[in-house]
Amino acid sequence: MTPNITESLAASKTEFYQDLEEQVQAVVDGQRNWVTNLANTSALIYHGLRAVTGKPINWVGFYLLDQDHASSSSTTPRKDSLILGPFQGKVACTTIEFGRGVCGTAAQENRTLLVKDVHEFPGHIACDAASNSEIVVPLELDGRVIGVIDLDCEVVEGFDEVDQAGLEKVAKILVQTCDWRGVV
Amino acid sequence: MTPNITESLAASKTEFYQDLEEQVQAVVDGQRNWVTNLANTSALIYHGLRAVTGKPINWVGFYLLDQDHASSSSTTPRKDSLILGPFQGKVACTTIEFGRGVCGTAAQENRTLLVKDVHEFPGHIACDAASNSEIVVPLELDGRVIGVIDLDCEVVEGFDEVDQAGLEKVAKILVQTCDWRGVV
Repeated sequence: MTPNITESLAASKTEFYQDLEEQVQAVVDGQRNWVTNLANTSALIYHGLRAVTGKPINWVGFYLLDQDHASSSSTTPRKDSLILGPFQGKVACTTIEFGRGVCGTAAQENRTLLVKDVHEFPGHIACDAASNSEIVVPLELDGRVIGVIDLDCEVVEGFDEVDQAGLEKVAKILVQTCDWRGVV
Repeated sequence: MTPNITESLAASKTEFYQDLEEQVQAVVDGQRNWVTNLANTSALIYHGLRAVTGKPINWVGFYLLDQDHASSSSTTPRKDSLILGPFQGKVACTTIEFGRGVCGTAAQENRTLLVKDVHEFPGHIACDAASNSEIVVPLELDGRVIGVIDLDCEVVEGFDEVDQAGLEKVAKILVQTCDWRGVV
């Protein structure tokens, strides 16, 4: 019953993301439950990326579209919100309105935000004062943002374009393979 | 937007679990989403218990009743299964049949299993070869097991009756306060 997923022994970040793609494919192979798959994917990214980069990456996880606060689920118009999903790291904010902070802005604008210094980002939400840089990648299903992958690092410039390209591939795999019941 | 949850600065494990009860109450206060609440509770237990005990606790998380494999959801009789939920630690097994390993046995028998040496437990499932002791506490809703809290430690005798009492209280709070849509 040991999971059939070999941890990455990558020598470089580029190699790590190549391995990660295969690992995420192994995670979703035969398992469509989004909670299960996002939990295991958070673990793969968190432990793997810390090991290969040596950087103090302190949070890796997901926020999903909050069905109880989606604009279509209420007669009173209100903004879509994100709600905390599976993650690795310390306790986190539970809800984030679209448009607020790095996560909410990436969700609203449906584009990756690579923020080299969070203190220079207008309206940054400080879930953990230790975080200094962040990358947020949207999960897009049929043209709609259904969640985001969020990574925080304790140092500035914790992430770069290699992370962006790798995480965008992971986002695509997850969106296409998971059953999103309860989210959409 | 910093979460309104103060991390435990407990001097002893007994004190830690007293604080944990309050922290879990704060997590579930105004938030009923089970994914969100179990994700934050895993983080509170994992980081807090490692800090207060100094023990190499390497996995803290939840398995939930798998609706796609529940005995009532199929015309062919089959056993209930657990499916991986939010956790802190390395990649884990995704599904566990009721009756298999420590998690599956605790779920089937609806009782806490405090296993001081996993290698002496018949049918132990080695998700992580580094684990040597384990405690599993059922989540019981209306007389039915809907999931388990699972903690692993790299040393034998990683957990004791103080953990059992504390985790059983946390299980009760979570069962009573979360909305279990998608699980039951």
